[in-house]
Formats: sequence, structure tokens, C-alpha cells
Amino acid sequence: MALRTGDHSQAATNGLKEKVLTLDTMNPCVRKVEYAVRGPIVLRALELEQELRQGVKKPFTEVIRANIGDAQAMGQTPITFLRQVLALCVHPDLLNSPDFPDDAKRRAERILQACGGHSLGAYSISSGTQLIREDVARYIERRDGGIPADPNNIFLSTGASDAIVTLLKLLVAGEGGTRTGVLIPIPQYPLYSAALAELNAVQVDYYLDEERAWALDVAELRRALLQARDHCRPRALCIINPGNPTGQVQTRECIEAVIRFAFEEGLFLLADEVYQDNVYAEGSQFHSFKKVLTEMGPPYATRQELASFHSVSKGYMGECGFRGGYVEVVNMDAAVQQQMQKLRSVRLCPPTPGQVLLDVAVSPPAPSDPSFAQFQAERRAVLAELAAKAKLTEQVFNEAPGIRCNPVQGAMYSFPRVQLPPRAVQRAQELGLAPDMFFCLRLLEETGICVVPGSGFGQREGTYHFRMTILPPMEKLRPLLETLSQFHAKFTREYS
Amino acid sequence: MALRTGDHSQAATNGLKEKVLTLDTMNPCVRKVEYAVRGPIVLRALELEQELRQGVKKPFTEVIRANIGDAQAMGQTPITFLRQVLALCVHPDLLNSPDFPDDAKRRAERILQACGGHSLGAYSISSGTQLIREDVARYIERRDGGIPADPNNIFLSTGASDAIVTLLKLLVAGEGGTRTGVLIPIPQYPLYSAALAELNAVQVDYYLDEERAWALDVAELRRALLQARDHCRPRALCIINPGNPTGQVQTRECIEAVIRFAFEEGLFLLADEVYQDNVYAEGSQFHSFKKVLTEMGPPYATRQELASFHSVSKGYMGECGFRGGYVEVVNMDAAVQQQMQKLRSVRLCPPTPGQVLLDVAVSPPAPSDPSFAQFQAERRAVLAELAAKAKLTEQVFNEAPGIRCNPVQGAMYSFPRVQLPPRAVQRAQELGLAPDMFFCLRLLEETGICVVPGSGFGQREGTYHFRMTILPPMEKLRPLLETLSQFHAKFTREYS
Repeated sequence: MALRTGDHSQAATNGLKEKVLTLDTMNPCVRKVEYAVRGPIVLRALELEQELRQGVKKPFTEVIRANIGDAQAMGQTPITFLRQVLALCVHPDLLNSPDFPDDAKRRAERILQACGGHSLGAYSISSGTQLIREDVARYIERRDGGIPADPNNIFLSTGASDAIVTLLKLLVAGEGGTRTGVLIPIPQYPLYSAALAELNAVQVDYYLDEERAWALDVAELRRALLQARDHCRPRALCIINPGNPTGQVQTRECIEAVIRFAFEEGLFLLADEVYQDNVYAEGSQFHSFKKVLTEMGPPYATRQELASFHSVSKGYMGECGFRGGYVEVVNMDAAVQQQMQKLRSVRLCPPTPGQVLLDVAVSPPAPSDPSFAQFQAERRAVLAELAAKAKLTEQVFNEAPGIRCNPVQGAMYSFPRVQLPPRAVQRAQELGLAPDMFFCLRLLEETGICVVPGSGFGQREGTYHFRMTILPPMEKLRPLLETLSQFHAKFTREYS
Repeated sequence: MALRTGDHSQAATNGLKEKVLTLDTMNPCVRKVEYAVRGPIVLRALELEQELRQGVKKPFTEVIRANIGDAQAMGQTPITFLRQVLALCVHPDLLNSPDFPDDAKRRAERILQACGGHSLGAYSISSGTQLIREDVARYIERRDGGIPADPNNIFLSTGASDAIVTLLKLLVAGEGGTRTGVLIPIPQYPLYSAALAELNAVQVDYYLDEERAWALDVAELRRALLQARDHCRPRALCIINPGNPTGQVQTRECIEAVIRFAFEEGLFLLADEVYQDNVYAEGSQFHSFKKVLTEMGPPYATRQELASFHSVSKGYMGECGFRGGYVEVVNMDAAVQQQMQKLRSVRLCPPTPGQVLLDVAVSPPAPSDPSFAQFQAERRAVLAELAAKAKLTEQVFNEAPGIRCNPVQGAMYSFPRVQLPPRAVQRAQELGLAPDMFFCLRLLEETGICVVPGSGFGQREGTYHFRMTILPPMEKLRPLLETLSQFHAKFTREYS
């Protein structure tokens, strides 16, 4: 940055004209965007890692990044079959190699046949390779007990985020008039607040009930909607199930109530279901909005508009870097769907390697396939370890005075509530920091543990939380949880 | 679509309430978006391929997609070394395989060391893997004769399109007030018109001079700018060099004049340089805006804001499907650059496989490496064949009466001008089609050749063109060019 800073001061001294693009002249909507998951706390974590590499002495030997759901960065090994198929697609000479199982080869050949020029280097059609969208449709049908899925309603995407932003773009009126409101849960995954800020739409907060394990309450949805109608036109309702950052799994009854509410109030449903494979708690089960809505029958089944999002980044795959995902749209107006198709085409196509991994994830090896046993064993091992980590996290945190953690029923995060002493809150305010940001920064500086303050996700006024992933390897997770609890006790003493 | 059409009519008959999201209620900016490269003509081409597969008789046996710069779809084989390194990164077990050269293995190990958890499945930092941005910086320094490049000014992206849209987002004021204008060439690559429509910015057209081989004339830039200032605030100037769809390569003198103009008028320069490896014509040479601007010295070198875009989709690589690219920003305000960093972070990271291919493309094997000879041979072969196709295309078209084609000095497209008889123009208007759309649709129906009408890129009133890629394999290209010329002659007779 030296050079730029250099000519800044130069500009100041010899009064050269201002730059074209400055904080004052840039898109003000972009300025309003915030994304805590990669915010200041993570930038500081990067600096600390740098300092450790340079041999600077710290009270810790490594920075543990529990800020983001990035399983493989935390040491989770990729599922062998996914990578075998992708390697074969990337470098088809390997189709002659004895080191790859036949089912991986058959799978790769089948995918390559469906690619332009039989190569991943060709663009796919903008909605994603036809064959893969058909495989996704079959997956959805199996998941939903045979309810039909139409490949024409499935759009592959660059991770789920890309598809979520596409739907929000369609829903938000881009010109004058009353601004569009979108209901999102609080706490939320900050992609939603960021995208709504960028699109100059109104974020309408509905609060999840922490006292009832982050349950979604329709009365609260109604409260939020009615208040919002005074100042914007609410048109969509976002649900994250299983919850991020809150880890709850919604009951079927709750989902039915939400669907009835959305239908009565004329809201487009956006169901973020990227953690559909990540359900751990006894008695918890994932119910897709598509399935529940269809089983509710008309008018819901035939009229309620829904978009459901999924991804290869989470689940047991954890293939975040490949940016694979999809959205299924249900009951979308046909003309709008053509507009969506057109909008997607401007960006040409989702990355083909992510499409390949998605294809394998939605159509894993069958019992008769040579890779079946290993695939199932690897998949089960990942999910079983996540379940154990979820339990351990809840348990250790709840043993700590001043920390309260709801059960991590699903997804990959705990979102414990922490009591912060008034003097700590006051000190934070003096420093111009949110109190839980102050806590998390101190935690990072003293222990190397990187978690994200609750203020980055939203929380009830006067409550403080942080989001911590359950992804660190077992042998690191327990000490990490204990270190964190001990730090909180020390922090509390310090400011009492 | 049957089901959706079904409940539409049902809705009509029993008067159910309107859907939430309709053409009337959706984002009007999205409705205005157009992207001819994948527009109606391409959808029709897909239908024709379907019909051919179903055995429907046509006057042709295959559809030739000359509509999009998709080299591998047209049969270009991937560069072996790129795919070897990527396969090793995807499936590291292969690092023990004797079938891969040592330099590919060293390269893959080096990249994996730089990835979170040593895996492509981890997110990279949002601006792209540090190591790869450093390699890109060194590539730019070599390309520009040693002019320094700072990895902190380089942002990897999901193809160049993603980075171009990011810069446009920063530049357009998202709220009220005078709308922002962005100067783009006519003819243009329709990503620009599409992105500006979506962002509700004003597209300010400047015309390239067809009579002078699509030269860029500063007087024309000035005309466009002055007229635009009546109704918007022009803040950026887009240049596509080598030209898409027009294939010209700008002279150094022209680039200097454009930089002086941008500086005097206070315009941010966006240099689309994705075809920088694709220069064929005798005496033509690629000059990067960064190099010219720097060599012009202060104030240009120290003050003029510039963003330069590149990609792995074009060049000799043709790896479109992997969506790899980057932008280098020059003289960008430091605070704005942090805002850009933040905005990028919301979408997490560019796909890692595209980052890997970019890394190999910007740091190819050295003469001492085992893969050097093969890499160079493959690279040369691709570029030599493209050069031959460029010459052939210009030559055959210019032999045809009523078709005039400027030299294809660079990029991957010809943009010939076609004379259309008044009665054809009239017939098109009766059908509500642009005359060159009418011509291209007839061409497609009768010959299976898919090209994009000039109206999709913009052209002077009353002139007609089409864009055709030079990518079909040699043995297909000559007959294709002749068939197209003959069809034009027949079409002309038919409407005379």
C-alpha cells in the first residue's frame, strides 16, 4: 500500500485533483455492506499468524480459525470418491490408470460425455450441465419421498451464495418507489444482510427465541411483518434450516406454520437448506420446505413460491473451495423463471469442477458399486465426528459459569450466550467496539482462538454471543473449549 | 414447464391471487438486461440439436456453435501441463504416481502448501491464494518489462466477468441523484451493457471506426462524453483490447491518447485485456494499459486509476469452464480498495481449481523443466492455428460480395458487415426482428451455423453485422465460411 499512501500525501501537499473513486463517490450501498465472518477479527487473525511465522512471541503457538465453516481447512480429509471422479474428469488420461475404481471411471466418462467437447474446459449451459441437473432432481425426489422434481427448475450455482443473491436480485425492485423488504432471522448468516445492503433493500429482522433453543415463532414473524409494512414492501421470507449461526433444526409443525404464514401474507419463501445433511440431535430430523409444502396440498402445493438452496461446501463433503451449489425453484412464475435464466446467462456458467462434485454428492455410489463401502464409511465417519463435537461443545460450554449454549442440533456452529460484566461493556464502548467484539478480540490476542462476535449476526439488545464452529479436530476441540471457558472466567474477574 | 403453465391457466380460471414475483413486480433493472451471446438464437440452436438427436430431417447434419468463444467446446484440446497440475492438486494420491512429470508434482505440492488444510476444498482468502497472487504479480512484471506489480493490488475472480462487475458495482452510485455513466465501445461485449442495466447505470456509447479497422478515436470519445454529461455523471471508460467482438489490436499511440483523455476528463479506466495472448496480425502487438500508463510517467503513472482484467478462459488455455481470472487495480484509493476487499469477502472466494489453472498459466514451465518442450509446443500450436483461422476468415469473407470483414488482428472473433436487401429489412420489421437477427435465424435454420447478430453488440444505425468465432477446427472452418457466404448470396437474391 506504500505507493498509494505515498501519492495520497503527495496529492495533499501539491493539491492534485481528487481520485475518481473515493469513499465519498463510491457506491454508498457497497459501503453499508458488512460481513463479520471475514471481518476485522479475521484480518487480525491473519496478522497474528504472520507474526507467529516471523517468530514473534505470543501466549499461544497457533491461531485456531473457528470463525468459518471450512471443514477441510480444519483438517477434514476429502471424500475419496468425489476427488477420484473429479481428477478423472480434469485429466482424462487417467481413465486408463489402474489406480482408479471402475465406478469412478464410469462416472467420469458419463459426466465428460455431457460436457461440451467432452471437456470441463468448455462452458456448460448457464443453468448447469443438463445431466447434472437431472441427477440433482433425482436426489431431491429420493430425499422428499418421491415428490417429483423438474430439472428445468434447478439452477446450478457458484456455491449457494451465488444462487441466494440471484433470487434476492429478482425480488428487489431496483428503481424508486417503496423499497422492498426481506424478512431474515436474527441471528442470521451475514450473507443476507450484506446482499440486502448492496441491493438497497430493507432488512426486516425477526428474532429466533433463544429461550426455546432458537425456535422460530410465527407470532414473531407477524410482528416483524406488520411493523415493516409501515416503511417498506416486504416480499420475501428467508429461513435458514438447520440454523446458521444458531444450529437449531426446525420441526415439521413449525415449517407448516411458516408456509401458511408466507402464503397468507404473500411472501416468497427462501429456504437456505445447505446444512440438510448436518443433523445430529436425538429426535431432530431435516424436513425440506419443498416436501412439507407439497404434502400440505393445494393451495400451498400449487401456489406458494419457494426457492431452496443447497451446496457442496457443507454436509459431509466440506468442499468449500470448489464453489458448487444449486437452487430449486418451486411454483415460480414461468416468465420470471425465463428472466432468471437470462440473468444467469450473463455470467456464463457455474464452475464445472463444482458441478462435478455436486453430481457425485447427489448420486453417491450404489451398494453394488466397488466404491460403495469406502464412500459410506468415510461419509459416516465425518458425520459421526461432527455429532460428537456438537455434543461436546454444548456440554463444555454449559459447565462454564456465565456461558449458556443451546443444543447444537444441526449445522456446524455453536452460538453461546456470554455474560459480560458492565465494566467490560463500558470499556468496549470507550474503545468504540461492540462489547462482544471487544471480548472476541481479547480472546484472540490472548489465546489465538478466532471466533466471531454475535453482533456480526445480530442478537437481542443487551445480549452478547459469539459463533464458534465445531470443526476443529477432536483432540483440539476439548482444550479449545476449556481455554475459551477459562478465558471468559478470567475476563469476567478482570472487569468485575 | 407443463405444470407451471398448468396452474397459470388454473389461476386464470378460478381467479387465484397473483404470484408474489411476476414480470410486473420483479426487479425492473433485471428485465432490461440482455445478453445476446446466449440469447434467443442460441436457445433455438439448442432446440435444433435436440431435433437432430430425435432424427428430425434438417438441411444440415450438425449445429456449429460459432456464437461463443468456447475453444474446447470446438475441439481444442487442453494444455497437458495445466491439467496435470490440477489433477494432482485435486487428488494428491497421484503425487506418488509415475505417470506425472516431476515439475507438475513440484508445482502441485507448492500450491497445496499454500491452501488451507493443504486442500483445494478449503476456502482461499477472498482475494485469492496469496502465493498465486504473487505469481500473477511476477507474470505482470515480466509482461510489462519489469514494471513492478503488487500482489495486494491483485484480486483473483470467478472468470474476468466477476471482477468486471465488481468494479462497476463500486463505481455506480447505488442511491438516487444523477445516475452514473460508463463509456463502452460500440460494438461491445454485452457483459457491459447487461451489468450496467442491472446496476441501473447509464451506458454511454462510443463508436469504433469500422472504416479504420475498428480503430478507437479520441474525438469520438470526447463527443460521447460531452453528450452524456447532459443527462448523467460519466465516471468510467471501458476499453476492450484486443477487441471483442471486433478483433482490433490498439496501437501504443492510441492507448496513450486514451489515457491522457481519461486523466483530463476524470474517468476511471477499465481495461478488458482478456485476449492479451491472442494477437495474430503482422505488426500488431499487445500493449497493456498498465505498462503504457506507467511509462508515460507522472501524473498519469501516479494518479490515473486503472483496473486491468485477465482470464484463463481465452488465450491459448481456453479453460472457460473453470472460471478463473483476475483484476489488477492501479492507483486505486486505499480506502476504496479495502471496501472492494470487503465486498469480495461476502462471496467467500473464487473457485480454487480456476486459481490453480491461473497459477500455471502465469508461471509456465521454465526451459529447464521436463514439461517445457511439450508445453511450448502445445501453446504454439494453438496460437498458430488461431492465427491461420483469423487470416482465412478475413480472406474468405472478403471474397464474398455484400460481406466486408476487417482484419482479425486479435481475440477470437470476426465481426463482418453484411449488406441486407431492403425487402429483407422490411420483412424483419414485419416479424418484429432486428434485420441481422432475421438473417442469423434464417442462417441457423438452413445451415445449422449459429452466429450472433450485430444488434446484440451494438452497431451504427442502418449497418448490419454478425459475430462469428474463428474457433471451429480448420477442416470445418473453410466449408463453414463458404456455406455462410453462399447463404448470404442466396438470401440477397431471395429478397431482391
